[in-house]
Amino acid sequence: MPCDIPAYSLPGVNHQVLLARRPNGIPVAADFTMVETPVPVPGEGEILVRNIYLSVDPAQRGWASAEANYSAPVPLGTPMRALGVGVVLKSHHPDYEPGEFLYGWLGWQDYAVIGEKQIVHRAKEDIPLAGFLALIGIAGTTAYFGLTELGRPKPGDVLLVSTAAGSVGSLVGQLGKSLGCRTIGLTGSDEKAERCRTRFGYDVAINYRAGNLAEKLAEAAPEGINIFFDNVGGAILDTALRHLKVGARVVQCGTASIGAWNPPPMGPRNEREILTRRLIWSGLIVFDYIDRYGEAAAELSRLYKAGKLSYELDVAGGLAAAPGAIAALYAGDNHGKMIITTG
Amino acid sequence: MPCDIPAYSLPGVNHQVLLARRPNGIPVAADFTMVETPVPVPGEGEILVRNIYLSVDPAQRGWASAEANYSAPVPLGTPMRALGVGVVLKSHHPDYEPGEFLYGWLGWQDYAVIGEKQIVHRAKEDIPLAGFLALIGIAGTTAYFGLTELGRPKPGDVLLVSTAAGSVGSLVGQLGKSLGCRTIGLTGSDEKAERCRTRFGYDVAINYRAGNLAEKLAEAAPEGINIFFDNVGGAILDTALRHLKVGARVVQCGTASIGAWNPPPMGPRNEREILTRRLIWSGLIVFDYIDRYGEAAAELSRLYKAGKLSYELDVAGGLAAAPGAIAALYAGDNHGKMIITTG
Repeated sequence: MPCDIPAYSLPGVNHQVLLARRPNGIPVAADFTMVETPVPVPGEGEILVRNIYLSVDPAQRGWASAEANYSAPVPLGTPMRALGVGVVLKSHHPDYEPGEFLYGWLGWQDYAVIGEKQIVHRAKEDIPLAGFLALIGIAGTTAYFGLTELGRPKPGDVLLVSTAAGSVGSLVGQLGKSLGCRTIGLTGSDEKAERCRTRFGYDVAINYRAGNLAEKLAEAAPEGINIFFDNVGGAILDTALRHLKVGARVVQCGTASIGAWNPPPMGPRNEREILTRRLIWSGLIVFDYIDRYGEAAAELSRLYKAGKLSYELDVAGGLAAAPGAIAALYAGDNHGKMIITTG
Repeated sequence: MPCDIPAYSLPGVNHQVLLARRPNGIPVAADFTMVETPVPVPGEGEILVRNIYLSVDPAQRGWASAEANYSAPVPLGTPMRALGVGVVLKSHHPDYEPGEFLYGWLGWQDYAVIGEKQIVHRAKEDIPLAGFLALIGIAGTTAYFGLTELGRPKPGDVLLVSTAAGSVGSLVGQLGKSLGCRTIGLTGSDEKAERCRTRFGYDVAINYRAGNLAEKLAEAAPEGINIFFDNVGGAILDTALRHLKVGARVVQCGTASIGAWNPPPMGPRNEREILTRRLIWSGLIVFDYIDRYGEAAAELSRLYKAGKLSYELDVAGGLAAAPGAIAALYAGDNHGKMIITTG
């Protein structure tokens, strides 16, 4: 797959999307500014990468926030933190060569100068380039470790997934299916519910916006749910908790339904559900598994090539789409894993 | 220890405390009635036990409730479900003999006719008779399995315990100490805090009623808490969650601070804490470990005889104290494991 891209055929300017101010809740377009800067020059041990596909991820909301979080906030005035796939143009590092494709922390910009620790994968797996973002990137690794390590599915388990048609949820559902689970997907429209069933193999898909979620869950899982892989939190979580079986596992992967955490929104107290149902409710941050990304990539690629996993892409053409992309993601406007081309 | 108690020296009447109506939240004295009935006669395979010490446990609130729970509600008009220690007076079961002491489901009454499955332990361990309730009974087994199986302490871990001077909490603190933890106890008065330090070996004890709990936790555990063994839920839980380290374990053993669950009280949403701190929050019902009670009894007795565990008793003389005892327990009036003598 690697090929040589001559630098002289590329623009001599670096478009960057900078974080201009701390978002109030979900980042919106006005929180960013676009600037043009010279193509950067790699220093000793560094690599110049031409970015090809950049990722839009729900986790970017947390990275942009100033609130205490699992990673340091993106400094204001710097390119928005983002994963991406790119090709090496120049390398001052002995282990990397021009023409090699890399997946890692490239940021929302045309060109990145990175060191080795910004590299997550060398793009060696035999999958499409966009698959490094949509399949074995943050979404796929999150789905893989969240389900296998925290959800711990057994054949016959009932697996409930929120944002079931999303970049993580769609893979969780398919992985669960491949492990013998009965899968129930929650999503925000009838059209997405249909896609959950036909494209991602869910046994049942529920449009939670159509109401009566509690009744529909009771009907879909009359004996209760063994695993809840939750990307949304909030009222959907509260309802789902009350349909879990004794000993069920809850994987808290995201809280997309919560607009802002400061001050913390209120909800019904859930500790009695945890106690009486003997839940095991775990928080998931995929970066805790960084040493095992290779394992996830190998297994996800294997399942993909065996036809057991598929993904959808929602491709925005050009960096100009980036500033509004996170808000669009939280609004559920996307169909599949959202990526941005650098043009 | 077993000895023969001639039945003819005992009263010919059975005092019983019956559950008269479903409590509205915490059971109060008026939810029970006392009756006198004839001493029951054991049938085929059954055993007549003269009860000696009966237990008062926070879990009785759940057993008396009609709400969906982990065990069937106590039927109205029957003796309140309770653990106790008694001596066999008559046995129609080949494996049990008069004079033998048993620990099990005896109920709030003077005499019980039981089958083998109501027996939890034969009283063989070389510990005081009240220790079957206070040390290796429901409190001790709860402390043991909750801490070792769900809390999973490592030497050097910071262990926070609520109701730290209570029947479960006092044992959790001492067990944690014996496993190399630094222990912080939360309790409801300065006097209890002092007892936590001097009697139960807590490194720090905080009277949460004195205010500034967040500041005091930050001071007591500046690098955060590894394990929170929680018996109370509510606002204390909300505060403690925000002082947990990444990867901390929360053992939800009780929800004593919540007066009533119907309708569910509201609180700040906690799913973001679970996610960003990668908590593992588990519900604990000790009956899930019923097959391993012997293991807990052996280890708790060993630590007790080695001087590493002590317990306190709060003894109420006579069944007349029983109807108001659960409410007194929730009010924190007791000093130590509450037991009732049958007189």
